[in-house]
Amino acid sequence: MLLEPIRWSKNKIVFIDQTKLPVTLRYVRCKDLGRLCDAIKRLEVRGAPLIGVAVALGYALAALNSKKGSIDGLAKDLKKASLELKSTRPTAVNLFWALSRMEKAFSKALGLYEDIDKIKRYLVKEAKDILSKDKDMCRAIGRHGARLIKNGDIVLTHCNAGMLATAGFGTALSIFYEAKKLGKRFKVYADETRPLMQGSRLTMWELMKNGIDATLICDDMACSTIKNKGITKIITGADRIARNGDSANKIGTYGLAVFARHHSIPFYIAAPSSTIDKDIETGKNIPIEERKKEELMYIGKIQTAPKGAKVYNPAFDVTPHELITAIITEKGIYDIKRFRRV
Amino acid sequence: MLLEPIRWSKNKIVFIDQTKLPVTLRYVRCKDLGRLCDAIKRLEVRGAPLIGVAVALGYALAALNSKKGSIDGLAKDLKKASLELKSTRPTAVNLFWALSRMEKAFSKALGLYEDIDKIKRYLVKEAKDILSKDKDMCRAIGRHGARLIKNGDIVLTHCNAGMLATAGFGTALSIFYEAKKLGKRFKVYADETRPLMQGSRLTMWELMKNGIDATLICDDMACSTIKNKGITKIITGADRIARNGDSANKIGTYGLAVFARHHSIPFYIAAPSSTIDKDIETGKNIPIEERKKEELMYIGKIQTAPKGAKVYNPAFDVTPHELITAIITEKGIYDIKRFRRV
Repeated sequence: MLLEPIRWSKNKIVFIDQTKLPVTLRYVRCKDLGRLCDAIKRLEVRGAPLIGVAVALGYALAALNSKKGSIDGLAKDLKKASLELKSTRPTAVNLFWALSRMEKAFSKALGLYEDIDKIKRYLVKEAKDILSKDKDMCRAIGRHGARLIKNGDIVLTHCNAGMLATAGFGTALSIFYEAKKLGKRFKVYADETRPLMQGSRLTMWELMKNGIDATLICDDMACSTIKNKGITKIITGADRIARNGDSANKIGTYGLAVFARHHSIPFYIAAPSSTIDKDIETGKNIPIEERKKEELMYIGKIQTAPKGAKVYNPAFDVTPHELITAIITEKGIYDIKRFRRV
Repeated sequence: MLLEPIRWSKNKIVFIDQTKLPVTLRYVRCKDLGRLCDAIKRLEVRGAPLIGVAVALGYALAALNSKKGSIDGLAKDLKKASLELKSTRPTAVNLFWALSRMEKAFSKALGLYEDIDKIKRYLVKEAKDILSKDKDMCRAIGRHGARLIKNGDIVLTHCNAGMLATAGFGTALSIFYEAKKLGKRFKVYADETRPLMQGSRLTMWELMKNGIDATLICDDMACSTIKNKGITKIITGADRIARNGDSANKIGTYGLAVFARHHSIPFYIAAPSSTIDKDIETGKNIPIEERKKEELMYIGKIQTAPKGAKVYNPAFDVTPHELITAIITEKGIYDIKRFRRV
């Protein structure tokens, strides 16, 4: 069952409001760029590859919404839209990659057409192409990664690197879906992933919908689950990968990689090649988003910490390449030792 | 400021319902053993040393409540009370230690007195003595442990091993209170401690009330906080310690010890010597309580995982002694290498 967390329909963006899951599957029809930017900031739309697709569609939406009669006017509107989209989340490189691709498409369209409507339609086509390529990418990651899954494997994952994080079958979770298609027998443990619970709310939901044998644990149970339940490997996604293989991903990933090393099991990252930021040499240069303290102070309206508490709330951490066994992209499985030459 | 999470008042047990913190400080007056057992099961009263004190007071309460006119009848009622108290939580050895002490006191009282009321009063005195000794124990742990705290230290702790876990100043947190009294400057990071959030609800609350510089993080932030905020040591409590030093404590503790080893910082356990179970050679023999799945499915009435999800919910894990630097008891600081000879 392929979910469609985002699609383009009749000049609108339709997305699943993921903050409502697992209780309600609610689709939002969005024709306004401000609403889309809020959705990305509020994590209604989240997951590095999906954010890439969303900003591409957002750029196309901004083009359609532009009321300017001149190409200069359209260019100004698009510049503004681009800045607005860039300000939503700083860590996922796919966002910048997708925007840069849309900006290049705009330049190209300017050379091809003089008619504003044709330019706009070209941008819509480009955004839909990014969405469609994302689906192919997911499939390819899944097929490569499925080779790593053996009968009897018990795999731990963190956050949500699944259908809800992409336009297709996901990155890390796509590996499970492909392995299941191949008839492999394996189990998955999913970390809850505080503070926003993408693991319990999203990963458990989509794994269960797709018939994967999945068990939920809290983040602080990961280490003893590895030891006591015999976890054989760990697979997560990534939000930005430096040239040397250092990988930024949802907070908690670095700790899992340390656990994997301690228990001598492999630790894999699965992500599209667009996640690799060739401009960044090591993980030290990756900006880490810190989110507001309320995420740790309240769950819904329930207060879980004393008023006035100091909070440290980084959304991501960086796993050094030495702790990563291999990185799986749509192009293949890269042992970390030869990753730099990719 | 000394909180009193439990006390004996006019033949009743008065305890703080810790599930209501940090929002409401609510005292429950309890004259019924069933109510006390529920409070322990529901974690209204929790923390290994405090559970020990609570069951001792509960045993005395059961004696007072016994309507039997004969000593045989009282013995039967106490036997029943003892079984009921033992069934509340399986991991904390202090519970069994305190009950065994109360049972011995009962035997002794039978030799001393023939009057039932005198026997009952003797049991109340014994329970109050356990409570009072617990306060002394906390103080002594704090004083020994405070020697380990240096100016500039940044200490990570997990769950709540504080005033709310004991009848006195706590175990791990007592070290902070004593260090502060000595004028030492240090900071504390507190893990939230899912699923029941003793870190954010209780530890943050009592540290803030006592003017300790404390910052809250989620459990999955611990590893990157150690690296990025320069944590210098980790101190937690324990619920049961085997002869070889393997220590059962709140789920997540084992992972922190692995992080400490990876980052070459010391990892300390602070617990009363009554936590040491001389009948158990290694951590493999410590029973680990698994709690109900609802703790991971809901927060209050908010559903955080899909209906029907499989859940693994161990309440404790065992940290192998090789990962522990030293164990701090009321008797002193024991380097793990000489712990067995304690």
